Amino acid sequence: METSRLSFPEASDILRAADRIKPFINHTPILTSQSINRKFDSDIFFKCENFQKVGAFKARGASNAVLSLDSEQIRQGVATHSSGNHAQALSWAASLVNTRAFVVMPDNSPKVKVNAVRGYGGTIFFCEPTLEAREETLKKVLLETNATEIHPYNDYRTITGQATAALELIGDLKTMDIILAPVGGGGLLSGTLLSSVFFSPGAKVIGVEPETANDAWRSINEKKIIPSLNPKTIADGLRTSLGTLTFPIILRYVADIVTVSEASIISAMQFIWERMKIIIEPSAAVPVAALFEHKVDVRNKKVGIILSGGNVDLTTLPWKSNGNR
Amino acid sequence: METSRLSFPEASDILRAADRIKPFINHTPILTSQSINRKFDSDIFFKCENFQKVGAFKARGASNAVLSLDSEQIRQGVATHSSGNHAQALSWAASLVNTRAFVVMPDNSPKVKVNAVRGYGGTIFFCEPTLEAREETLKKVLLETNATEIHPYNDYRTITGQATAALELIGDLKTMDIILAPVGGGGLLSGTLLSSVFFSPGAKVIGVEPETANDAWRSINEKKIIPSLNPKTIADGLRTSLGTLTFPIILRYVADIVTVSEASIISAMQFIWERMKIIIEPSAAVPVAALFEHKVDVRNKKVGIILSGGNVDLTTLPWKSNGNR
Repeated sequence: METSRLSFPEASDILRAADRIKPFINHTPILTSQSINRKFDSDIFFKCENFQKVGAFKARGASNAVLSLDSEQIRQGVATHSSGNHAQALSWAASLVNTRAFVVMPDNSPKVKVNAVRGYGGTIFFCEPTLEAREETLKKVLLETNATEIHPYNDYRTITGQATAALELIGDLKTMDIILAPVGGGGLLSGTLLSSVFFSPGAKVIGVEPETANDAWRSINEKKIIPSLNPKTIADGLRTSLGTLTFPIILRYVADIVTVSEASIISAMQFIWERMKIIIEPSAAVPVAALFEHKVDVRNKKVGIILSGGNVDLTTLPWKSNGNR
Repeated sequence: METSRLSFPEASDILRAADRIKPFINHTPILTSQSINRKFDSDIFFKCENFQKVGAFKARGASNAVLSLDSEQIRQGVATHSSGNHAQALSWAASLVNTRAFVVMPDNSPKVKVNAVRGYGGTIFFCEPTLEAREETLKKVLLETNATEIHPYNDYRTITGQATAALELIGDLKTMDIILAPVGGGGLLSGTLLSSVFFSPGAKVIGVEPETANDAWRSINEKKIIPSLNPKTIADGLRTSLGTLTFPIILRYVADIVTVSEASIISAMQFIWERMKIIIEPSAAVPVAALFEHKVDVRNKKVGIILSGGNVDLTTLPWKSNGNR
């Protein structure tokens, strides 16, 4: 037991990550809503990572990873395969140290995501839209460029970076009863678990995922990684499966994994937009959906919810549209 | 000169309003964006009244007016004609003191606005969609109910309430070079001007309005109130014209009134949604549009912008839609 625990990142790793990225990231605000508190009979604190650099918590992990490299590694650049927020975050993080980010993206990626990566200065390599093609292409890019791969979640530098979101939440609020975070590859959830264990041991951390992409729920139940194969969910940030580094942390420390339907993800997203006047992406609505589905008992509890990001194509909303004005 | 000035509300009136409404309203956050600052070569501070109760600064004026009434007046309720944020704000403010709000609305009001007023407990009287019918119906309602009329802007209790938004902004930021606010009936702008004159005399306050509803610009130029008749603008909060109480304050103190096009209001709105991940309504985008049109020189200046509200029908967005997902 103790041996495997020793290999996990420690409190000091998270504190060092926080120091390292502090000059570059936003200490994001925590928002509350009296009407939402009343609705759920609870004290809910929304940690607004949608206001983070590049619009998502991914800026934390990517910048921590990039800033952890030595100067020769930095000179040669960084690389990843991603069509989502990590691609933007890594491009942004590379620009902080004036180096290049090589991003492998499927050739059917939405134009808005391609433009976002380019906007942050990333260099894109397109490939067929399969996991194999993405991995193959990334291998070639790494060979050609000598860049360092920065994995979106299965990397302790990424995990300790993501952990700083919960560290800030805990620092600002002191105690909490429950912390809710979405689960995709598990980078945010494992980081949140570590910060909670080290800095707020009384808090129960619960992961929430779409029921159509319930690999974390199945993996925790079976005590081994069971990937979701091409899951269909509107929560585009949560289609990935747990990694070999994130799974053991989650298995050891998570209080519960709960799942939510696509319909309640969409309602929760619209609810937050309407009531809080903030823009969150579907993945960020997933923990909120758990409240709607009564999957977590939050009554009379102090609850932190990490709103993971706000990158949405504003021309394509998931609820019924009455067209243009 | 001094005589007319004496009739304006004083610093103590604004401070009293702030005390009166403090337990009920939100001290709204001020958000900044490095990318927006870079774009305009300026230090811009967004006062987020879209996060205010009922989603708009109107909660300030309405609650100050209602809480200024004596107990007999409170018992008999309050009334107004409005189809916008003031209708919701007054309904909400009445509920704070357990009295009724009678709201006259045109019978073609969007269902979402009707539901919002009802949601806050307001009692609606429908009328024909003309100003005459609204005023006639309100007169009847006032006679029947003995309620007190609370005007959306042409009332010093409303104006000093709205002034507390700029008071908070000044309190949080200390000094500012420029403050931008939208102008409709002039309640927010005249309140902002008074707060600036009393508490931050160095700041230049500039009003911004749609060029299709440019009554403030014309009125200031002609030094008399020139109403806009049924102006067409997407900024639904700014279709009203200056009042007899707001005009003299604006005429005396405003540094400038500038106007912006419909197209730049829509672009500015979309820009704030995308970059800041917050939802603002078209009226709130109007001062931001002035930056896009270079109507105000903000370079190297410390600029406060009052984002007046965030009440938007999320099913009907003003930019090109690609339909549902």
